[in-house]
Amino acid sequence: MSQPVSHLTRPLSVGIAGLGVVGARTAQLLLSPLTSHPDLQLELTAVSARSKDADRGFSMDGVDWVDDCRDMAQRDDIDIIVELIGGSEGIAKELVEQALASGKHVVTANKALIAHHGYHLAQLAEGAGVTLSFEAAVAGGIPAIKLLKDGLVANRVSHIAGILNGTSNYILSEMTATGRSFDDVLAEAQEKGYAEADPSFDIDGVDAAHKLAILAAMAFGEQVDFDAVQIQGIRDVSDTDIAFAGEFGCAVKLIGSAERDGIRAVRPCLISHTQPLASINGALNAVSYEAEPVNAIQCSGPGAGAGPTASAVLADIADIALGRQSYSFGWPVSSLSEPVNAPAGQARSRYYIRLMVTDRPGVLHETAGILKDLQISVESMLQKGQSDDRPVALVMTTHETQADAIEQARLKLCETSFVSGDVMVLPIISSTE
Amino acid sequence: MSQPVSHLTRPLSVGIAGLGVVGARTAQLLLSPLTSHPDLQLELTAVSARSKDADRGFSMDGVDWVDDCRDMAQRDDIDIIVELIGGSEGIAKELVEQALASGKHVVTANKALIAHHGYHLAQLAEGAGVTLSFEAAVAGGIPAIKLLKDGLVANRVSHIAGILNGTSNYILSEMTATGRSFDDVLAEAQEKGYAEADPSFDIDGVDAAHKLAILAAMAFGEQVDFDAVQIQGIRDVSDTDIAFAGEFGCAVKLIGSAERDGIRAVRPCLISHTQPLASINGALNAVSYEAEPVNAIQCSGPGAGAGPTASAVLADIADIALGRQSYSFGWPVSSLSEPVNAPAGQARSRYYIRLMVTDRPGVLHETAGILKDLQISVESMLQKGQSDDRPVALVMTTHETQADAIEQARLKLCETSFVSGDVMVLPIISSTE
Repeated sequence: MSQPVSHLTRPLSVGIAGLGVVGARTAQLLLSPLTSHPDLQLELTAVSARSKDADRGFSMDGVDWVDDCRDMAQRDDIDIIVELIGGSEGIAKELVEQALASGKHVVTANKALIAHHGYHLAQLAEGAGVTLSFEAAVAGGIPAIKLLKDGLVANRVSHIAGILNGTSNYILSEMTATGRSFDDVLAEAQEKGYAEADPSFDIDGVDAAHKLAILAAMAFGEQVDFDAVQIQGIRDVSDTDIAFAGEFGCAVKLIGSAERDGIRAVRPCLISHTQPLASINGALNAVSYEAEPVNAIQCSGPGAGAGPTASAVLADIADIALGRQSYSFGWPVSSLSEPVNAPAGQARSRYYIRLMVTDRPGVLHETAGILKDLQISVESMLQKGQSDDRPVALVMTTHETQADAIEQARLKLCETSFVSGDVMVLPIISSTE
Repeated sequence: MSQPVSHLTRPLSVGIAGLGVVGARTAQLLLSPLTSHPDLQLELTAVSARSKDADRGFSMDGVDWVDDCRDMAQRDDIDIIVELIGGSEGIAKELVEQALASGKHVVTANKALIAHHGYHLAQLAEGAGVTLSFEAAVAGGIPAIKLLKDGLVANRVSHIAGILNGTSNYILSEMTATGRSFDDVLAEAQEKGYAEADPSFDIDGVDAAHKLAILAAMAFGEQVDFDAVQIQGIRDVSDTDIAFAGEFGCAVKLIGSAERDGIRAVRPCLISHTQPLASINGALNAVSYEAEPVNAIQCSGPGAGAGPTASAVLADIADIALGRQSYSFGWPVSSLSEPVNAPAGQARSRYYIRLMVTDRPGVLHETAGILKDLQISVESMLQKGQSDDRPVALVMTTHETQADAIEQARLKLCETSFVSGDVMVLPIISSTE
């Protein structure tokens, strides 16, 4: 590890690349800190962004404007480069690589970059004896990474689970509260600015998977591996599913979950109301850790937004300034283990199965037969509505079953003459697990 | 700040005083760590406890036994002394004072000691250039203090609130789940070992107040001041109060709460089910922080127990070993401000008022008159049951009111001819605050 830099006689000098809402708030807080830790002497030296002339609501007099952010990597008067441009490739990646190669510390909120290239970048940082940190990349204002590196440092983590995408959680919470459809709530969220015009990164689970990959790497001391994360988004969750989940005492949440030596997945789940994650509503994020000897810890808070994300960026900057450096992923890169690719099909869970079926005699018998042949044991079954001409919902929950068997059942059910449309299969998370 | 000690060529040497469940688990984890951080080289050199011969379930061969723990303070071969004896005075205090004076780092789980003498001890530590840390003193396994020093370091905290005593929370949760009385649930908790034979530290709010005093000092950069905390325990919370709270959409929780420049109190409160703290049940603890720029963060987990507390003790030890020292209360003692003693009477809140009254005409009119005269505006009123000979419960909630006025109303109501027994007054915490 490099030496603490708090002994420097001049304040530590910061350059910010990217002045969107997070970058602007970070710059503002460096210029006018809300607290004054006596050992924390920071100076905002340079900034770079697409538009020099945008009105950001505060003065940056005395701060250098840099047209090409990559030039900051070569400046002797900058100690820490804060990358808030985003994107896993292109200029953000070039800037971070060049900065680390030139011996600058790097702080970033870029989850895509770290999920895809974190291992390579951590190698660069360690080789140059500098810090690469990315607290703001996971769960916004929640210190989800520092918790692992610091408060739980003596723990062996066995399982992490989290609500890691605020937009998806907002949509599912609204659907639950109002009974409205996915499309309806998404359109409203887009109108209000809670969801992007192209919402796919959020609602298809990619953003949550970036964060889960990073958290899993930190929790288990592994090389970060985005490709190991199975991803299923929330597009196909219907108001019908949410209503049935309620009858089973569950909420539907997009859960990112990773087990030591087990599977890593982001997918909608039924989660029992007795579980702490079930009560995290709206745009909040939450992360829960199961670990020895602490048992279980959960932390919740705003997963996005200018202030919360700036809080995390500034905490990383403070760690560097106070000499509290640590390895990017908590351990030296040489000791990070190969990514785990556990066979997903062997994972076991209880499941929720929802089919839209023609309401005629024999449907139940045939469905039960398919499940029986695959050794899937049904726990409960519900059918709602009655109709001669439109399909009705048939819903089952199963006892613990292997994922392979459930997938075979899903395919077989889709092939029957009485099932219309997709068959929805969601894992159930309850206190017995 | 002292220099990091991670450059030492020998492992850092630890002595543990007190081998109760926490001390024993800490010792065991030092001898057989669950994780192996490459920079974390620790050695358990000496232990001290009342009984040398107790079977603690693992071997301490090679670890020195010290009869008088204070002797550890003088030993050159010990770098960190872990104080797990407990109590604000006597041998624990002597050990910590002597250890700090001899230039040893001290890690403690002793909330009473830090709540009463933390300022003095932090002065000693700073004078000697060593670390005094006490993560385990607040909320067990939850890194409640590190969150402030680390993840929220750039934040200005405005308000902290927490469920800080697991025994009280267990009793209130059980009363809520089963409808049983306080005495009944307490007796069962004592039988099961969840409550002490003398439960007063827990149920009278003293333990929670120790923790709140420490958290408030850290959050607001103040000299810790136990005497500034108003304390009301849960002995007088009845099953009637819990049932009425439910009708108002609230749980009853023992909440420790501190505002910057405002009052610090531990007391039972009605808390709306929409508030995250309301869903923290059983023996769990939780701490919530309101701060700029992060907005609001909450962390929950086990507030006591061998493993969780050892997790916190080991995290403090790791900070020292990894050179991540910090000031005991987050800032140099010279910059800690005088304790705030805000006038409690001027604090404003909504309130729940419960009286047991004789069921006769005119009672409602007279009660309403007393409140009107004190300018207290009633939001809702409920009366349950009907009886000619036994008092019935009359319950009101108020709009926001000054504490002084509510106290006057309570005294006046007690003096009336129709009220029997005490008048219960509890603040209401809802989302509008």
